[in-house]
This record gives sequence, C-alpha cells and structure tokens, in this order.
Amino acid sequence: MTDQLPVSAADIEAARARIAPFVHRTPLVRSETLGRLAGCDLWLKAENLQKAGAFKARGAHNAIFALSDAAAARGVVTHSSGNHAAAVALAAGNRGTTARVVMPTNAPRVKQDAVAGYGAEITLCRPTLEAREEAVAEIRASTGAVLVHPYDDALVIAGQGTVGAEIVDQLADEPPDVVVAPVGGGGLLSGVAVAIKAVLASCLVVGAEPVGADDAYRSFTSGHLIPQTSPDTVADGLLTSLGELNFAIITELVDDIWLVTDDEIIEAMELIWTRTKLLVEPSGAVAVAAVLRNRDRLGGRRVVAVLSGGNVDVRNLQWNVDRGSNVAG
Amino acid sequence: MTDQLPVSAADIEAARARIAPFVHRTPLVRSETLGRLAGCDLWLKAENLQKAGAFKARGAHNAIFALSDAAAARGVVTHSSGNHAAAVALAAGNRGTTARVVMPTNAPRVKQDAVAGYGAEITLCRPTLEAREEAVAEIRASTGAVLVHPYDDALVIAGQGTVGAEIVDQLADEPPDVVVAPVGGGGLLSGVAVAIKAVLASCLVVGAEPVGADDAYRSFTSGHLIPQTSPDTVADGLLTSLGELNFAIITELVDDIWLVTDDEIIEAMELIWTRTKLLVEPSGAVAVAAVLRNRDRLGGRRVVAVLSGGNVDVRNLQWNVDRGSNVAG
Repeated sequence: MTDQLPVSAADIEAARARIAPFVHRTPLVRSETLGRLAGCDLWLKAENLQKAGAFKARGAHNAIFALSDAAAARGVVTHSSGNHAAAVALAAGNRGTTARVVMPTNAPRVKQDAVAGYGAEITLCRPTLEAREEAVAEIRASTGAVLVHPYDDALVIAGQGTVGAEIVDQLADEPPDVVVAPVGGGGLLSGVAVAIKAVLASCLVVGAEPVGADDAYRSFTSGHLIPQTSPDTVADGLLTSLGELNFAIITELVDDIWLVTDDEIIEAMELIWTRTKLLVEPSGAVAVAAVLRNRDRLGGRRVVAVLSGGNVDVRNLQWNVDRGSNVAG
Repeated sequence: MTDQLPVSAADIEAARARIAPFVHRTPLVRSETLGRLAGCDLWLKAENLQKAGAFKARGAHNAIFALSDAAAARGVVTHSSGNHAAAVALAAGNRGTTARVVMPTNAPRVKQDAVAGYGAEITLCRPTLEAREEAVAEIRASTGAVLVHPYDDALVIAGQGTVGAEIVDQLADEPPDVVVAPVGGGGLLSGVAVAIKAVLASCLVVGAEPVGADDAYRSFTSGHLIPQTSPDTVADGLLTSLGELNFAIITELVDDIWLVTDDEIIEAMELIWTRTKLLVEPSGAVAVAAVLRNRDRLGGRRVVAVLSGGNVDVRNLQWNVDRGSNVAG
C-alpha cells in the first residue's frame, strides 16, 4: 500500500539530502529518569534544538529548496503565527528569496518579532481563517508567490519525515519498538510514519494529541476526516485540523493515537525541563505526556518520543524566586 | 607561584581520573546567536547537564572518593539547601555510604525532596548559620562523619577544576581567549583558574558575580577577604561568602571579576532559555550576563562562559499561555 501513498521513503531520502546543509541532525537523548517514570527505555528526539526551534524547519526547507529558480524568485507566502512561519522565513532567507507571512493582529508581539527577525515581510489581518486566506490569495495574485502550506503538502511531509529517518539511523544498533510523535495538522506524524514503517515494519508509530483538539483521534477512529472546531488546549502548536494528505497516510500507517489532558501536558513539560534541562514548549511535551500516561502498555520496550519544539515565550512565565533560604548552595 | 597554591593542575588531573566513572563530560556548545549579541565567538560549558544538574557533582565525588574506606564507612555530612547537598547525596550513594545533610526548615520542599531522593538523611534546623553549624557538629560527634565543605576544601576545588580541564581539551584546536565562571564561595572559579592557567597562561580567567552578593569583587579589589553580609540576589547559588583557600587562588590567578545586576541575570537566563533551549538557573546565567555586559571588552575574541547549573524550581514559574491566536502552527 505504501507505494500508493502521497509520500514515499524515497521522497524522504531526497528531502534529507536537500535540507542537510540548512538544518541540524538533532540529538537523540536517552533519559534514564523519565524512562524510569515511564517504565520503558525512553529516548527523546530533540527537535527543540532544531534551527528556529522546531521540526518545522525541515519541511519548510524541503518545500522551498525544491522550487525552480524562477518560482523561488517570486517568493513564498504562508499564514501562521507559529513555528511554521519562522521556519518559512528562515528557509526563504537561505534560498535568497522573500517570505511573506500573513499573521493575525492578535499574534503575540514576540512571535511577530521572531518572524521579522528572520527577514520575512509580515502582513497583519483580522484573526479569522477567512481573513487569512483572503490575505494570502491577494499576495499570491499580486506577486506570484508560492504557498508553503504548514502540513497538507507532500514536500512538507517528506521534510518532516526526515525526523523519522534520523531516528532509524540513530538507533540502528537497537531499533525502537514504539515511536510517538505529536499530531496537529499531521505533517510530522505522517512523515515519521512513512520513514519508520519503510524500514521497521513492526515498530509501532503512535500519534499523541491533546483531548482539547482531538480531531485526529476522532478522524482516525471513525475513518473519515473530521475538522477541528473550537480547539482548546495549552498545546498551541496542535490547534489545527488534520490535513487530507496527512489523514490518508495516518489511516494507512499509524497504529494508534493516544490522547492527553492539558494537566498531563504541563506535568510532562515540567518533568522534561527539570530532568533533562531541555526547554520544550507545551506541544513539544505532548508525546512524552502520552508515554507517561500509557506506561502500562510500554513495559520495558524501547520508546522514542519526539520533542517537537522549544519555542516557549518565557516572557509568559512569571519569575518568582524563593530568595534567601539557600546559604551554602 | 602556582606551585605554592593549595590546588595544583596535577590535583585536578587526579580528580578527573577519580570522578570519571560518575560524572558527565558535559558538552561545550557554541551559540551563534548569543555570540552575535555579545560580539564574540561564544561557547557555553553546559554544566546544567551535569549529574544532579550542576558542576557540584564533580567536587563532591572527588572529596568523597578520596576518602579511605574506613573514613567513608562513617558517612559524610554537609549543610546546604542547594546543589551541593544533592551532589553530596549522589556521590555518597555512589560510594556506598550515607550522606547526612543539614537543611534549614525553610528550604523549599522540592529541594528537600531532591536531596532525599538521592538517598540522603536530612536533619532540619533553624535557618541560621549557628544552628546549621551546631547540627553539623553534633552529627560529626555522634557518627564520625566527614564534613564535605561546599567550596573551602582543596579536594572540592580540584573536582570543580575539572570543568576547566575539559574546556582546555574541548577547545584544543582553537584555545579560548577568555573563560568566565560565576563566583559564590569560589570553588568553581578557583578550580577553573588553576586548570586554565596551567596550560593557557595568556587566557584571561574572569569571575562573574551579582552586585547583590559582591564579596568576591570587594575582596579581590581590596586584597583582603571581606565576608558577605545580607546578600540579596536572584542568583541563589551565589549567596555565600568567598572561602579562604578560594580567595588565595583567585587573588593569584584570576584576572578580573565582573559584576552584574539581577535584571541582567534574568535577561541572560531568558536569552539562554530562548536561544539555546537549555534550562539554566539564575546562578547558571551569571557568566553569560557578564559577557553580554562587557561586550566592548570582548570584540571578536573566543570566550567560554560556564553555565554552572540548571536546577530551576519550575513550580515557581507561573505558566500563562496565550491561547488561541495560533492556528497554523
């Protein structure tokens, strides 16, 4: 069946060669402490250490570097207030072209600054899907810029799939039994599933999703694509609806989708911070939260959880230090 | 002059061999982004990734593994509510003996739990220096336990000096021009100074200290040891007074001490979190704060800043996520 899917393992290998000069091969870190808590041999794929702080740099570079010179010269456009926007801005700069990013007027200033800092041109619009799509359509009409979709795009999926290809290589001597990745639009999960299943057919590939944005779970279990309405979760990178290409791949290759609550996400995030000293954003902790919740299913197995991103706005954190009790620190 | 100091480069090499099975050789990470901000080629020695989350594991293991079997059998004792306590507890466990840790009743519960989690016996006392010293004296008298001082001890200094020896090795092909380490009691700074100056005589070694606990600066500039009274800084690992052995070494080998404000420490900490995704505690950001403040002195030079620890109590952070503005993340 895999051959009929929109993305193949060969596409992922091509992506890997294409993006290699521009992205990190991120570390795969074993966490003894979290593994003890989860009752398994737990490895963390640290995409929070990726360029621009998330796996999104992979798909954006693959899509933008696959463009012809003529297409690239007209620039690229996307709408996002999150990690994809920064990734597109970075990749466009590396390609020597212009990224135009449509962001809602209520996007946090720090995210606007990050995108602008990578050299993108920002167009602000009202915070509705219609307003965004209209703004993107106008930019495409006036400039000929190519749309780089955040997930429902074969090149983007192949780029995100390089995460899975690296995991296979990094654990070549002791292959994983289970790989868990968060799912929002599904670019990461579908790409990872193609990469893993191509080589390790018996390795389980599992999506991890917040209960407050559980459209992938409902789509997966019902067998037809159910759009996300009114998502509500602390995992702000996973609010989107599952894409069509992504759904097709996930239906075929993914073994299960595990739900987690916001409390579990925050607890997992704090554990990752505290025990590994790696900064992850809430969405980046969702796979670990799912592993901890499902420890009964994982007993003793070798498990990889993808830490998808690290772009926490620390200005949102209130810094309250307990002063003075620490004399001989 | 170095030969007459209480710790030699040979002591540090001996420490390195002694503690190698129990501590990490931590990564030395180049940060392009922070380097751009600081106008230099900036490298970070990631002791926040050390066992028990701080460089303190080095000195504690060196002191405890240097004990005779008979002495070790009587156990060890220390007073601390911070990283040294956890390090001593860990090292004692590795040696197969008991750590007794005197902590003030107002030590945060999370720190008590961490120390207990490493298997130490905790004795709570009133939060005064007198009460602590009395409790330690009682334990020593009744058990014969050996005191492991957090910094004013030649074996502890030699252990912390292994940080400097690793920096020398890790930058063997492109030696540093400046190494900056935080200074509280002075164990880390004095040990690093011995290790660096033994090999790289022209490399500057600089201490970084909060203005709210500036006894090392005042001692260094006046030439006589001035105890710290009423320290007030967010860097809770640097509240202690400089030790005597430490002062002797620092006077001889350290080139300068740079002061930083709490605002600069917090800004540096947030920059490290945001740009490198490495979690550091306030004390662990002090060297980077000093580098950023002194960028005019560092133009283009190769600079190492020691990230001394990562034990932030994230329960002290108020998690306020901006929900809902992030649709196509």
